[in-house]
Amino acid sequence: MSDWKQPDKGVTESHGQYISAIYRHMQILISAELAPYRIGSGQYIFLMAIAIQQPITQKALSEKLLIDKTTTAKAITKLEAEGYVRREADPTDNRYQLLYLTESGREVVPKVQEALSRVKNKTRKGITDEEYDLLVDLLRTVLRNLSEQEEMKR
Amino acid sequence: MSDWKQPDKGVTESHGQYISAIYRHMQILISAELAPYRIGSGQYIFLMAIAIQQPITQKALSEKLLIDKTTTAKAITKLEAEGYVRREADPTDNRYQLLYLTESGREVVPKVQEALSRVKNKTRKGITDEEYDLLVDLLRTVLRNLSEQEEMKR
Repeated sequence: MSDWKQPDKGVTESHGQYISAIYRHMQILISAELAPYRIGSGQYIFLMAIAIQQPITQKALSEKLLIDKTTTAKAITKLEAEGYVRREADPTDNRYQLLYLTESGREVVPKVQEALSRVKNKTRKGITDEEYDLLVDLLRTVLRNLSEQEEMKR
Repeated sequence: MSDWKQPDKGVTESHGQYISAIYRHMQILISAELAPYRIGSGQYIFLMAIAIQQPITQKALSEKLLIDKTTTAKAITKLEAEGYVRREADPTDNRYQLLYLTESGREVVPKVQEALSRVKNKTRKGITDEEYDLLVDLLRTVLRNLSEQEEMKR
């Protein structure tokens, strides 16, 4: 009964189908792991990005993560409501707001990282360290190719 | 200016971050490729799944693709409005509706496949056939691990 989760072989098998399926599966597992912190699968990526890049504007965050403005705004509102993120006027230009982690935000980040690591480790079963490094390298190449494609279209 | 699209190295680099970023990039490229057919990046996966598995109910489609009911219903409504998909009462149980491709649907499928292949080929640049096969194998392992995780939780 579990083979239906695999993309259909032979027809159009490609990394793209696997990536879509893996993405959706991971979002489901991550949701479950982060439920105790009331952080959804659509929000953790913003929390982690703010942790690394704060202070950052909502616009820059949306562009860096390639996630549209509306989705970004909703995620930030949710993270703010949960007390993990706060907004502050940009001292250099008060038309803009900068996003920061709150103290609760700083406290929850390592827990989110541990949860993400748990999901990561579960998905690595049967893959050696060498294979894993190669997988990450190949994915990095795919991502670079995609970034270049988009730049060519601009 | 393009390195901001890469996940931050060192901090929490993992295949999961690459997969999320690749997934979002691919959705953007696929959207652009499929715009002439008025098929969105959220819809082609349903069109292709119906092509392979028709006749299929909306519920089964949602379960197979791991996409929630509401998103599935919206995508099917859109594909139906564009004339690519039709619903028909299940002859064995008329409480259920089965989804089929229309003639336009059957005609557009090879064009969608070509568009997906174009995206796939663009992302393979600099990856040899051997490396690509290994990438697909490793992704298949990751997906199988994820499927097993979910079954354990049931």
